[in-house]
Amino acid sequence: MLIRNAWYVAAWADEVADRPLARRICNEPVVLFRDREGHAHALIDMCCHRGAPLSLGAVTERGLQCGYHGLTFDGAGACVAIPGQSHIPERARVRAFPLVERDAMLWIWPGDPARADPSLIVPYPYHNDTARWPHRHTMYPIKGAAMLMVDNLMDLTHLGYVHVGSIGGNPMTHVEARMETERTPTGLRFTRWMPNSLPPPTYVKAAGFTGRIDRCQRFEFIAPGAILQWSSADEAGAYANGQVDDSRLKFRLFHFLTPETDTSCFYFWSTANGYRLDDPSATTQLFAEIGAAFEEDRTVVEAQQARMSELGEDALVDITTDAARIHMRRTIERLAQTEPTPLAAE
Amino acid sequence: MLIRNAWYVAAWADEVADRPLARRICNEPVVLFRDREGHAHALIDMCCHRGAPLSLGAVTERGLQCGYHGLTFDGAGACVAIPGQSHIPERARVRAFPLVERDAMLWIWPGDPARADPSLIVPYPYHNDTARWPHRHTMYPIKGAAMLMVDNLMDLTHLGYVHVGSIGGNPMTHVEARMETERTPTGLRFTRWMPNSLPPPTYVKAAGFTGRIDRCQRFEFIAPGAILQWSSADEAGAYANGQVDDSRLKFRLFHFLTPETDTSCFYFWSTANGYRLDDPSATTQLFAEIGAAFEEDRTVVEAQQARMSELGEDALVDITTDAARIHMRRTIERLAQTEPTPLAAE
Amino acid sequence: MLIRNAWYVAAWADEVADRPLARRICNEPVVLFRDREGHAHALIDMCCHRGAPLSLGAVTERGLQCGYHGLTFDGAGACVAIPGQSHIPERARVRAFPLVERDAMLWIWPGDPARADPSLIVPYPYHNDTARWPHRHTMYPIKGAAMLMVDNLMDLTHLGYVHVGSIGGNPMTHVEARMETERTPTGLRFTRWMPNSLPPPTYVKAAGFTGRIDRCQRFEFIAPGAILQWSSADEAGAYANGQVDDSRLKFRLFHFLTPETDTSCFYFWSTANGYRLDDPSATTQLFAEIGAAFEEDRTVVEAQQARMSELGEDALVDITTDAARIHMRRTIERLAQTEPTPLAAE
Repeated sequence: MLIRNAWYVAAWADEVADRPLARRICNEPVVLFRDREGHAHALIDMCCHRGAPLSLGAVTERGLQCGYHGLTFDGAGACVAIPGQSHIPERARVRAFPLVERDAMLWIWPGDPARADPSLIVPYPYHNDTARWPHRHTMYPIKGAAMLMVDNLMDLTHLGYVHVGSIGGNPMTHVEARMETERTPTGLRFTRWMPNSLPPPTYVKAAGFTGRIDRCQRFEFIAPGAILQWSSADEAGAYANGQVDDSRLKFRLFHFLTPETDTSCFYFWSTANGYRLDDPSATTQLFAEIGAAFEEDRTVVEAQQARMSELGEDALVDITTDAARIHMRRTIERLAQTEPTPLAAE
Repeated sequence: MLIRNAWYVAAWADEVADRPLARRICNEPVVLFRDREGHAHALIDMCCHRGAPLSLGAVTERGLQCGYHGLTFDGAGACVAIPGQSHIPERARVRAFPLVERDAMLWIWPGDPARADPSLIVPYPYHNDTARWPHRHTMYPIKGAAMLMVDNLMDLTHLGYVHVGSIGGNPMTHVEARMETERTPTGLRFTRWMPNSLPPPTYVKAAGFTGRIDRCQRFEFIAPGAILQWSSADEAGAYANGQVDDSRLKFRLFHFLTPETDTSCFYFWSTANGYRLDDPSATTQLFAEIGAAFEEDRTVVEAQQARMSELGEDALVDITTDAARIHMRRTIERLAQTEPTPLAAE
Repeated sequence: MLIRNAWYVAAWADEVADRPLARRICNEPVVLFRDREGHAHALIDMCCHRGAPLSLGAVTERGLQCGYHGLTFDGAGACVAIPGQSHIPERARVRAFPLVERDAMLWIWPGDPARADPSLIVPYPYHNDTARWPHRHTMYPIKGAAMLMVDNLMDLTHLGYVHVGSIGGNPMTHVEARMETERTPTGLRFTRWMPNSLPPPTYVKAAGFTGRIDRCQRFEFIAPGAILQWSSADEAGAYANGQVDDSRLKFRLFHFLTPETDTSCFYFWSTANGYRLDDPSATTQLFAEIGAAFEEDRTVVEAQQARMSELGEDALVDITTDAARIHMRRTIERLAQTEPTPLAAE
C-alpha cells in the first residue's frame, strides 16, 4: 500500500521550465507546469473535456492550455477558458495537488490536501549553499518499489557486494562496521564507523588516500522517502577523538524515493562535495562515481522486484544486519495506519 | 462495444496482391488474399487443422494453402485439399467473411453474413476518377479506439491547436467558424464557413494565396466509420453568393476508421486534389501535408486513449463545440441497439 | 498442464562454467551453477534473505554467493554463510532441484525429488563419441508450448511446406512416405521410407547426390521431451534389401523440448554427421542447414501458439497424417495422470 498523505519529491525544480512535464506519482498521472509568473503547479494529467493529457499542451498567459481543443486551466485546476463559449460550467475543472518549491525541488502531496502542511517537508538547505556544498543532481527511474530502494539504503552491508569495485571496497569492512542506531519520531538515524579500513576506489580518486583510513557514514531516514547521508574519511587514527567534521574527505548525498506505481519509483539524488571546493572536477567526479554505483543498485533492486512480484516475500528470512531496515519498515507501517482505507477498486 | 454488422474497409485493394495479408478486424484475426482469378477473399486467419495462421501460407491454383501441412481453402472457407488423404471431412473449413472490392478498397462485413447487403457500402467514386481527382492513399494504425478518431473529425476546432502549424492556422478561425449541421438517416452532414480568414500554411503552399480567403469545409459522416470531406478556398469575398464549386483550391479527403480491437483502429485515408490537375507534385504535396497533420492527430488520440483506459470518461464535460460529435455518438448508439447481445465471454 | 516429475534438459553442460546461469524451467526461476569442484547444481533463483536472484551473484569456494548481501548457499540449497553473524538459522535455505550431468547435458527434475531416478534419463552416448559422431549443439528459445514443438516433429509432412527450400524438398515425397510406427512403453518409434525420391538441397550439399535417392528417417519419441532422429540416404535402389546402416549419407539429430512456461519452451538440439568424418566443414555445414530449418519451425510454432492462446484448439480437425502426433499426445496424457493434482492457485 502506498502512503499518500506525505510530501514527495515530484521533480527537480529545473526539470520544469516553459514546457509541462508528465510524471506518474503514487499511481496518479500528474502534469507539472510553471506559470508565466514562475510558480510551479501540479494537476491531474487529463483534460476534463475529452481526456487528452494536459502534458501535451502548452503554457499560456492564463495557465496550462490543452493541446487538443484549447481549454485552459489555472494552477488550482479551474478551467479559465473554453474556446467557443463564454460560460464556464462549474464542473469544468481538474484535480490539483498541493505543490511547494523548496531547496531546488518540487514537493507534491498526493493525499488529502487539507492535511498538506508545508512545515512537514524535509529541509535540505545544502542544495542552496553552492559555495560550501557544490552539488549535482539527477533522477533515476527504477522498476522496483520505492520501499525496496529504501531497504537498500538501510542495510549498507550491500556495499561490499554490489559496489565492491566502486564505493564499497572490502566486504568485511562493511559487515564489521560499528553501528550506532537512534530512533526518531519520523524515522531513524544511524552512524557506521569503519576505523583503520582500506579506502574504496572512489575515496582514493576523491582524496588521494595512500594508506588506511578512518571512515564514517551518517544516515537519517525520514519517512516515507528521504534519506540524508553524510560521509567522511581521514587518515587512520584521525577519528580517535570522535571528531569527524574537519575530515579530509567529506560529502553529502541526498536520496529521495517517490513511488511511481506499487512496483516502480523515481530515485531523486544529489551529490555535494565538501572537499576540493575550488575544483569543479571534484563535483563532477563524485557525481559520476556515485551515479555508476546507483546503476548497480538499480540492477539488483529491479531483479529483486521481479522475484518478489512472482513469488512473494512471506518465506524470506531476516538476518542481523537487517536491524535498521526492520525499524524503518515499522515506521512505515505506523504511517500506513494513519492512511484512509483504500477504495475497494484499488 | 464494437458494431459488427456493418461494412468496414479491410484494406486498400492494392495491399492484397499475390501474398496473403494478416489484419485484425473487430478483434478477429483475418487473412485477406486474392485468388488466381483476381478475386479477393477474407477468412479467419487460423487453419482448422493445427491452428497455424493461414497468412503464413501461399496462394495456389486452388486457393490459400496453409504453410504448415498444406491444407488448402477456397474463398468460401471450404477445405479443398488435404495432403495425404482424398476424403475431406465436412468440418474441415474455416470461417469466411463477406468481402467486396469497390472504389479501390476491400470492404469486409465482420457480423452476420445474412445481413451483408453490398448496397450499404459507402460509395466513393472519386477513387476511380483519376483525371479530375488524382489521389493518393495510405493507412495509419492507431493505438486508440476508432470512435476517438471519429470524434476527432467531428470537432474541427482542434485544427487550431493540434494542427496550428500545418492545415489549421489561427485557432479563432475554427472556433468562430459558422456551422451548418444536418442530420441524415445514417449520420450527419455539416458545413463550416470561415469567410475572410487567414489561409493556413498548407493552403498557401497549395494555391499561392497572398491575402485573406473565404474557406469552406463540408463533412459527411456515415456510420459507423466513414467521413467524406470536401474542402475549398478562394480569395476573400468569392463565397459571398454561396457558390464554392469553382474554387481556386479544392480537395477531397476520404477517411475511414476500422476497429482493430476495442482500443485500436486502422485509419484509412486518401487525398485527392481538384486543383493543378496537370501537376503531379500537387497530389504528392497535399498527401504529404495531410499525412503530417494526421500524425499529429495520432499522437493526441493515442494519449487520450491511454488516459480513458485508465481513468474512464464518466467525469468528462461536454462543451458547445461538441454538438456534431454528440450527434454522431447518438447515431452510433442507435446502431449498437440493432446488434445482437454480445456473448458473455466477450 | 506441465509434467513436473520428469527429467528435462536444463542446459548444455558447457553453458555453465564459472558464472551462474538463470533459466526458467516449468515456470520456476532456476539458477544453475558449477561449484569449485566442478559439480553442477540447480537452485531456485531467489535468495531467502531479500529475494534477489542468486544468478546475479558469484561462485565462491563455499558455493553460490548472493550478489546483494553475500549469503552463500551450497549445492543442496543450505545457507553456509551469512556475513555479520555466526549462527545460521534452519530456515535459511533455498529449494534445490535434482540435477545430473550426462552426455554433455545438465538434466533437471522439477518435480518431487524423491521420484528423481537418474536411470530414467534418456541416454544419448553419441554426444560422447566425437570420433564417429562429430557434433555441434545449441538451444533455441521458442515462444510456443513445448508440446507444439513435439507435435511438429511427430508429423514430418510439414517438411514439404515449411522447409521446402532446405531439408524438405518436394512435398509429395513426404506425404507419400511409407510410415512404420511402433508404440513403446515410454513413447513411440516410427520409420519413414522415401524410396526413389528427389534429394532435398541439404542432402545434395552434404553428399553430392546427382540422381534420385532412397531416403529413410527413424524417430524415437521418449516422453515428455526427447526426440532422437536417425536419418540416412543413398543412391536409389540401395535400400531394396532394407539395409540402411552403411548409407553414403547418415546423420543423427538430438531434439529436446523443455517447458519454460505453459506457452514457451527451450529447444535443445544437436547435429552429428556420420559421413565425411575427416572433414570438419561437414559438421559445420550440417549444423548450419538444420539451424536454418529450425528457425522456420520456430516462426510457424510461435504463430500457431498465438492463435491457440487466443482462439483455443477445440474446433481443430485431425487428419490422417496426425497418427503419430495423436499417439504421442496420448502418451503424455497418461503421464499427466500420474502427476499430483495442481494447487488451486496454479
